Amino acid sequence: MWAELRPIGRDGGTRGYRRYAWTGADQDCRAWFRAQAEARGLAYEVDRNGNQWAWLGAATYEDVAAGEAVVTGSHLDSVPDGGAFDGPLGVVSAFAALDELRGRGAEFTRPLAITNFGDEEGARFGLACVGSRLTAGQLTKEKAYELRDADGITLPQAMEAAGHDPDAIGADPERLARIGAFVELHVEQGRALDLSGDRVGIASAIWPHGRWRYDFHGEANHAGTTRLVDRRDPMLAYAETVLAARREAELAGAVATFGKISVEPNGVNAIPSLVRGWLDARAADEATLDQVVDGIRKAAGEHADRHGIDLGVTRESFTPVVEFQHALRDELARILGERTPVLGTGAGHDAGILSASVPTAMLFVRNPTGVSHSPAEYAAEDDCAAGVLALADVLEGLACR
Amino acid sequence: MWAELRPIGRDGGTRGYRRYAWTGADQDCRAWFRAQAEARGLAYEVDRNGNQWAWLGAATYEDVAAGEAVVTGSHLDSVPDGGAFDGPLGVVSAFAALDELRGRGAEFTRPLAITNFGDEEGARFGLACVGSRLTAGQLTKEKAYELRDADGITLPQAMEAAGHDPDAIGADPERLARIGAFVELHVEQGRALDLSGDRVGIASAIWPHGRWRYDFHGEANHAGTTRLVDRRDPMLAYAETVLAARREAELAGAVATFGKISVEPNGVNAIPSLVRGWLDARAADEATLDQVVDGIRKAAGEHADRHGIDLGVTRESFTPVVEFQHALRDELARILGERTPVLGTGAGHDAGILSASVPTAMLFVRNPTGVSHSPAEYAAEDDCAAGVLALADVLEGLACR
Repeated sequence: MWAELRPIGRDGGTRGYRRYAWTGADQDCRAWFRAQAEARGLAYEVDRNGNQWAWLGAATYEDVAAGEAVVTGSHLDSVPDGGAFDGPLGVVSAFAALDELRGRGAEFTRPLAITNFGDEEGARFGLACVGSRLTAGQLTKEKAYELRDADGITLPQAMEAAGHDPDAIGADPERLARIGAFVELHVEQGRALDLSGDRVGIASAIWPHGRWRYDFHGEANHAGTTRLVDRRDPMLAYAETVLAARREAELAGAVATFGKISVEPNGVNAIPSLVRGWLDARAADEATLDQVVDGIRKAAGEHADRHGIDLGVTRESFTPVVEFQHALRDELARILGERTPVLGTGAGHDAGILSASVPTAMLFVRNPTGVSHSPAEYAAEDDCAAGVLALADVLEGLACR
Repeated sequence: MWAELRPIGRDGGTRGYRRYAWTGADQDCRAWFRAQAEARGLAYEVDRNGNQWAWLGAATYEDVAAGEAVVTGSHLDSVPDGGAFDGPLGVVSAFAALDELRGRGAEFTRPLAITNFGDEEGARFGLACVGSRLTAGQLTKEKAYELRDADGITLPQAMEAAGHDPDAIGADPERLARIGAFVELHVEQGRALDLSGDRVGIASAIWPHGRWRYDFHGEANHAGTTRLVDRRDPMLAYAETVLAARREAELAGAVATFGKISVEPNGVNAIPSLVRGWLDARAADEATLDQVVDGIRKAAGEHADRHGIDLGVTRESFTPVVEFQHALRDELARILGERTPVLGTGAGHDAGILSASVPTAMLFVRNPTGVSHSPAEYAAEDDCAAGVLALADVLEGLACR
């Protein structure tokens, strides 16, 4: 399976993946998913929000009784220059786990579905988990219609160009009502399993996290002729804020990052009129996150004042802490052994979105470097195999009793 | 004249000018120049490097004896979202000064040319004063052919698309040999005249200045899951360097600016793999400039080491101090009155390039705010009129004796 998926959407220079929602690379990934489903005799279905489903023991979700389906999967899209594992590992492992269970001669007593959720990374339209958010009713059709990519193309235009009817999108409670358990396997984005020496772990919770846009408005001027005292240079206030974010995060044991910036006019010999930076901040609990975010904002305000800069701060998204369902988590621990480590994560996932509506759990596969969202993202082959076996055990425990 | 020139290449949103070399807006400006020349019965000519010339008393430069021509002019292109005066004021004032001299019934004893030098700002291809550099032999055809804009279009491709033969470009010593004096009028980019209460000043020298590209190479990673201690975040080293540049410039009485940045992958939830920032630095003398640039580089290296960042620094351009010819400067002071202030400037100009080959001088017109390279760039109407009269007096003194 990897061999066919590996070349899709890979940049020849960076060796990173550029699989953005509703682009050609994404369509190629989706065609791969459909072919995998059909090769296994699974019933293939695309839901109203463009998420893909492959059913065993049902032709469509409508055949399934309330709370009966066991569902596993992840996503196939990527961040800019992302790695091969974030997302695809969960989908490939789902198909491989089914193969494993068929090899064991397992008899399914509940319907099983494998899924590919659309637009998880939000690389194109700036909002993560669009497919699962729409389905769970956490993103309205109206708000989704306002999403635009960097070229000004709206989400409905992109869907339509890719052959999906954007009119149909919206909450899908009838589908969710069928799901008794959703389990997402994912490469760990961190080194907890590497440090503990385990191949596979179970998720406890997703840290609360959010994105804030910082607009530093100064005054464009000539870089060669404007005296330092006459300047209102927003790059200085931005730089101070980047360093303040690091300090605040360090003090609180949280993470805070400025990874995206946009500058106007962005000329070598022009003091900028505008520096726009995006803050990504996460912490183990919301009180800590508030403290970090407030600290950064206060520091930014002080530095902006000192440099004559007008500062605007906009919260673009916020996701509260997600605690995965304790009953399902305990069930996974029972199936995989009580020694299996349970760990929190700073990354958002479709599982985090769905956990508000259905019992949800996650499995993590060891990442020896902790690197993700990068071409260097990596998981060892035997760790991936251990992940497939763990997922197969879990599905067998849940769907084959 | 202003009324026809004002709307060309102006952005409806920012109200700033976007007149980049060999684009449609630039072509419209050039058509305006030609129409102004022809309306005054001047002989119109484009030189091998695309600079425009309008001759009085000659059909082409070949008609002129060595060292006879008096030339005035400036440029019509702009920085991104530039102002209306930087460049165009010198060209408009040149035509207006000719009108003034004809009104006075002045009799020209030497040939006069009005010029528009191409691609002065370097907004499109990253190198300033391309037209005058080529003509003065300070930029070879080979190097010019390597210039590319942000879309990958090369300078010769852009020239060809605009109808100029790129094969012809190169040094033009025969043309320069005809020039006895070049005088460029320019809006002041600073507040010296405003502070001294004068309408017009004479340039003494152009500060040495250069551009350095700083490449901070880190490691792309997930902003939510990578522990702070495991990060190699180049944005932190960049931010430290921006602040170090300000400190070093302050200590030395120089200017240093990071106004342009490029980030990869530039995603909200990704620690960057690369932050590339451009430093523009200038000082009154080369020893001071060296001290500032060395100080910034040392600080950048220390901060890069501390954050695990690989730093590459490339000098993209450097222009030594330009002292305008003392004899011509004294001549201007004699014509305009010994009280006329003489001032240095941090900005590069075509006059600075040409001064290596021909006697060159500059006139500055008061800028009440000092702002330039911005839509807010401004000069009062009566100061502009004083500039035209001063330029007319200078041309009369030089060409009508």
